[in-house]
Amino acid sequence: MTSNDQSDPLVLFMPSGKRGRFPVGTTVLDAARSLGVYVESVCGGRATCGRCQIEVQEGHFAKHKIVSSNDHISPVGAKEKRYAEVRTIPEGRRLSCSAQILGDLVIDVPQDTVVNAQVIRKAATDILIDRNPAIQLCYVEVDEPDMHKPLGDLDRLNLMLEKDWGWKDLLVAQHLLPDVQKILRKGNWGVTAAIHRDLETSRPNLIALWPGLHNEAYGIACDIGSTTIAMHLVSLLSGRVIGSSGTSNPQIRFGEDLMSRVSYVMMNPDGREAMTRAVRQAINELTVKVCAEAGVNPDDILDAVFVANPIMHHLFLGIDPTELGQAPFALAVSGAVHTWSREIDLAINHGARVYVLPCIAGHVGADAAGATLAEGPHRQDKIMLLVDVGTNAEIVLGNRQRTVAASSPTGPAFEGAEISCGQRAAPGAIERVRIDPVTLEPRFKVIGVEQWSDEDGFAEEAERTGITGICGSAIIEVVAEMFLSGVISADGVVDGAMAARNPRILPNGRTFSYLLHDGAQRITVTQNDVRAIQLAKAALYAGIKLLMEKLGVETVDTIRFAGAFGSFIDPKYAMVLGLIPDCDLSEVKAVGNAAGTGALMALLNRDYRREIEETVKRIEKIETALEPHFQQLFIDAMALPNKVDPFPKLASVVTLPERKVLADGDGGAPGGRRRRRGRE
Amino acid sequence: MTSNDQSDPLVLFMPSGKRGRFPVGTTVLDAARSLGVYVESVCGGRATCGRCQIEVQEGHFAKHKIVSSNDHISPVGAKEKRYAEVRTIPEGRRLSCSAQILGDLVIDVPQDTVVNAQVIRKAATDILIDRNPAIQLCYVEVDEPDMHKPLGDLDRLNLMLEKDWGWKDLLVAQHLLPDVQKILRKGNWGVTAAIHRDLETSRPNLIALWPGLHNEAYGIACDIGSTTIAMHLVSLLSGRVIGSSGTSNPQIRFGEDLMSRVSYVMMNPDGREAMTRAVRQAINELTVKVCAEAGVNPDDILDAVFVANPIMHHLFLGIDPTELGQAPFALAVSGAVHTWSREIDLAINHGARVYVLPCIAGHVGADAAGATLAEGPHRQDKIMLLVDVGTNAEIVLGNRQRTVAASSPTGPAFEGAEISCGQRAAPGAIERVRIDPVTLEPRFKVIGVEQWSDEDGFAEEAERTGITGICGSAIIEVVAEMFLSGVISADGVVDGAMAARNPRILPNGRTFSYLLHDGAQRITVTQNDVRAIQLAKAALYAGIKLLMEKLGVETVDTIRFAGAFGSFIDPKYAMVLGLIPDCDLSEVKAVGNAAGTGALMALLNRDYRREIEETVKRIEKIETALEPHFQQLFIDAMALPNKVDPFPKLASVVTLPERKVLADGDGGAPGGRRRRRGRE
Repeated sequence: MTSNDQSDPLVLFMPSGKRGRFPVGTTVLDAARSLGVYVESVCGGRATCGRCQIEVQEGHFAKHKIVSSNDHISPVGAKEKRYAEVRTIPEGRRLSCSAQILGDLVIDVPQDTVVNAQVIRKAATDILIDRNPAIQLCYVEVDEPDMHKPLGDLDRLNLMLEKDWGWKDLLVAQHLLPDVQKILRKGNWGVTAAIHRDLETSRPNLIALWPGLHNEAYGIACDIGSTTIAMHLVSLLSGRVIGSSGTSNPQIRFGEDLMSRVSYVMMNPDGREAMTRAVRQAINELTVKVCAEAGVNPDDILDAVFVANPIMHHLFLGIDPTELGQAPFALAVSGAVHTWSREIDLAINHGARVYVLPCIAGHVGADAAGATLAEGPHRQDKIMLLVDVGTNAEIVLGNRQRTVAASSPTGPAFEGAEISCGQRAAPGAIERVRIDPVTLEPRFKVIGVEQWSDEDGFAEEAERTGITGICGSAIIEVVAEMFLSGVISADGVVDGAMAARNPRILPNGRTFSYLLHDGAQRITVTQNDVRAIQLAKAALYAGIKLLMEKLGVETVDTIRFAGAFGSFIDPKYAMVLGLIPDCDLSEVKAVGNAAGTGALMALLNRDYRREIEETVKRIEKIETALEPHFQQLFIDAMALPNKVDPFPKLASVVTLPERKVLADGDGGAPGGRRRRRGRE
Repeated sequence: MTSNDQSDPLVLFMPSGKRGRFPVGTTVLDAARSLGVYVESVCGGRATCGRCQIEVQEGHFAKHKIVSSNDHISPVGAKEKRYAEVRTIPEGRRLSCSAQILGDLVIDVPQDTVVNAQVIRKAATDILIDRNPAIQLCYVEVDEPDMHKPLGDLDRLNLMLEKDWGWKDLLVAQHLLPDVQKILRKGNWGVTAAIHRDLETSRPNLIALWPGLHNEAYGIACDIGSTTIAMHLVSLLSGRVIGSSGTSNPQIRFGEDLMSRVSYVMMNPDGREAMTRAVRQAINELTVKVCAEAGVNPDDILDAVFVANPIMHHLFLGIDPTELGQAPFALAVSGAVHTWSREIDLAINHGARVYVLPCIAGHVGADAAGATLAEGPHRQDKIMLLVDVGTNAEIVLGNRQRTVAASSPTGPAFEGAEISCGQRAAPGAIERVRIDPVTLEPRFKVIGVEQWSDEDGFAEEAERTGITGICGSAIIEVVAEMFLSGVISADGVVDGAMAARNPRILPNGRTFSYLLHDGAQRITVTQNDVRAIQLAKAALYAGIKLLMEKLGVETVDTIRFAGAFGSFIDPKYAMVLGLIPDCDLSEVKAVGNAAGTGALMALLNRDYRREIEETVKRIEKIETALEPHFQQLFIDAMALPNKVDPFPKLASVVTLPERKVLADGDGGAPGGRRRRRGRE
């Protein structure tokens, strides 16, 4: 299609910047396609679907040596006028299937594809995702049956899909056979076919069929977390996210954390089936909800992409996760899974396709793959650390040269479990804490109350919510603040000597606690709470450090916290505690549900599927349990922020206490009972 | 693998005649494979499956310049000995995976593939079908899981299937995912995978998996007739037909013939569903029966091939056949259908594949395609006429240059319906008739009685069965004999004047009948019966003649009668009546259930699938109803044997009566009421 004739008009497409010369009379759509610029079209150039809109940018583009003008495009013709009469078409927009090139042009392909990647409890982030979805809608007009050429209705439909759209060797979903004739006749021989083509090595599939012009196609991108299931609903024709929602994972009733769910499967003959049914049902209910909010028919959902941690991944796909509960943590399948909605009982279009991102390792799942795809350590030169903290922390580290990954068993402390006054993030939970380094008096913020605890009106407001506990993010802050104010030592011991300075330091058996709030509920941070946080953060840091050693780097350039936990904590406090290595604080970012964003990218552009499949193959997997050095790294990481690693960048913005070592109890030696256990 | 070094041993494989030179030490199996000689192997050269047996032909093969000897093959080694101890191995046979080439050899690949194509009520015919099944069993030993390389179990299985067997880009059936881990562990990491690959453009499928060495794989080939469902059970590893059986099509309860079944669908809201369920259930019961007889587990059936007429084809696939009941007789799908057993509720292996042969036209189904594949008009130079007579006659005519096809509405007269004393072929039915041209006395044979009616002991024997009616094949004979003896004229009028010669010619209103038997039941052939046969045979002959005209031929070289009807009638009488055109009688052959044989071929060799798909595309379809000339051909064909066409070859072996024309009734003009209706 592109021409070598230098006298032909030059056309530049924005924002891609792709350009080429085309003979006068070429439609803008054909020109875009021949350059590989993605412009949607359902009706196949009949000017009825309105999906192929573009805009001419007028002006003198000196850099490109183009004078672009609306005079260089054919005037609005009859078909386009008819479309504009039936539907509205924004001022300045043209249908690229009708508009012909008459002279040099700069063409803007409107980026309706800006994705509003809403994350639960997370501010919206806009990202731009190039589109190349696995689903394409194709309107065709099929020849009526002819006794002289008795090809079947479906066969003539296939012929037309080849003639008009170039689809060869189409594989037709069996469930369509009984409906083909009725649909063709209902549409008076004009029908819209949904074609799915993902892998180039697979034949394209005819997966759905509607009478007449069907101008709607949607997809869902879903992250199945142990606690929360999050879903985006996307128009595959515009690329726009038109709804996002979340729900609790009902498997919680079988077990709070992953390992208790594996145990449930091992202990109950129908445990696997029950949990598979529960998660699929929750996904179906969430789909109905997100569709209802957006006014979308679930039957118009034609593609679905899922990410999940390995155990959720297996249960969702109907696979017994028992092997993941014990060494060698064998995944049933690690590669990407391509399947059909009906094979896994999803209540979307019967012919819809399902894609599940690959898992990286037995403890580093498709969710980590999704986060990797979204944040792209493998796409840059900087060394990026990507951490998703949960019961297991999934850690990916590297750059375009080399990427390594591991998981580390942080346990549930960061989520508020194992903490004496820990609770889920909900009204009444303390979410921010500051401790005055001189008076050792705290001030704090409670979820549902606008004021800080030392501000006017706090008491009245807090009476509504109560002050009921400490949520996960505040645990980090309060322990970090206790450390910065000297209440605990670098070894994590609550300093009983401080009781003389402030009565909030209370004896508690052989150790001491810090009284954060004394009200209807007495909220304290005990020595055991501090130890639990130390163990969790030591596991995380040791895992990160192990990967840094494997990669041969002393520092990381940039850090991404994925997941809910990362969105709530203050990176500064995370670094003060030594959860993460030293780094420029401006380079530490919470990225929310990056796993879900990765799923979204794979939904909108199948090239991302290939990218993550290749990337996962290249990622080197480290099993922390098999690394002899891990124990030493863990012990060093018990100290705040670390026994051996300096934090010069942190120290430049935060005054870290001088090192002092105290015993756990009255007569304890450095390192208490729990630390010794950690050493064994 | 083949070598160009003229000093390397020369190996000739029989019966294929393929040959090549191979370095000393090459296994016979590798040599066979590199030449494209099909030798089965499940265990992948471990000498445990015993499927790759061959035999050395000793001697001096002057024509090939080969001296072949058992000394030119490596002696039986340890692995082969072990196999022979566990299983028996016939004298002289070797396992080609272990036997190495040491010198020139002539190797016989034993043709266990001789198919015993048993047809219901039809003598066995042996045909040789080259094998290239769509299913292959592949034993592999999979690496155990490794925490350092956490590839999923399935992914490591796939790797090994690529490494050992060359399968790339395997598509794994979703339903296997939940079982992969258990099967691998049960087999102690040794498993047998069933791979399905049919079209080269489709990815190979992993469809079934067993622990350890699984050495059984079967297929079914099934012809779904309106009246009878016939099935062959085949070992896909040996190619042997190990069972054949048939059952009634239970759809008969919804309607005797095809059009009444279409009516049932049109009149009853759940009619289509009920008929689909009925035929699938009958197929499942037949599968269980044929498996039980052969001692085969239905779960070991991995491939199934079906042929059927268009209406059975649609109902079986769950498609409403209403469109086939009215012009333009549009098929929902005419091309071959590739699907899965579970999509159409077949009670065989859950991952089994299903292949349905293409339909030729709205009234020329996949059964005609199967018969075409089996008899191969498109493979020869002779002009072959292939006829399958039922309610509709399906007619294929042509040779390798050009093939045409049509159907002709013969109606049910040939099946004994519309005939006053007609009945199904069952004990008591008259099946053979002779009429003495001088006395006009008949003699006949009754099903279940050994003697002819004029032989001693007939009366006693016939008392057991009764003499209850005339079956389809005898209708042809009795009308032909009536014509040859002068009881009816060339125009098909029962000659009242003959009543003077024999009282068996009885007046019957304005026409006459012939009394065939007077007993408990009075069995007569009425003028109406003769007319019904004339109408049916005229339709068939006119259809054939139309195709001959299209092809531009005056005669056909060879005729094949497919289906049950053809197996029972005497070709001579069929020609006397002018059902079929003049032809050397030795070239008229009944081929039984050729449609089922075609299904069998497509089951054993996927190349036949491509062959029939291509052939059906090339066949020119003639719609008799649209051909203006058809009426004249029909009218000419009302006469016995034909008004205008000479039958010189027939006349050389049978004395045909001189032409005389009589009226239907007393005062009737030539050509009666019915004939005039035929003309309008």
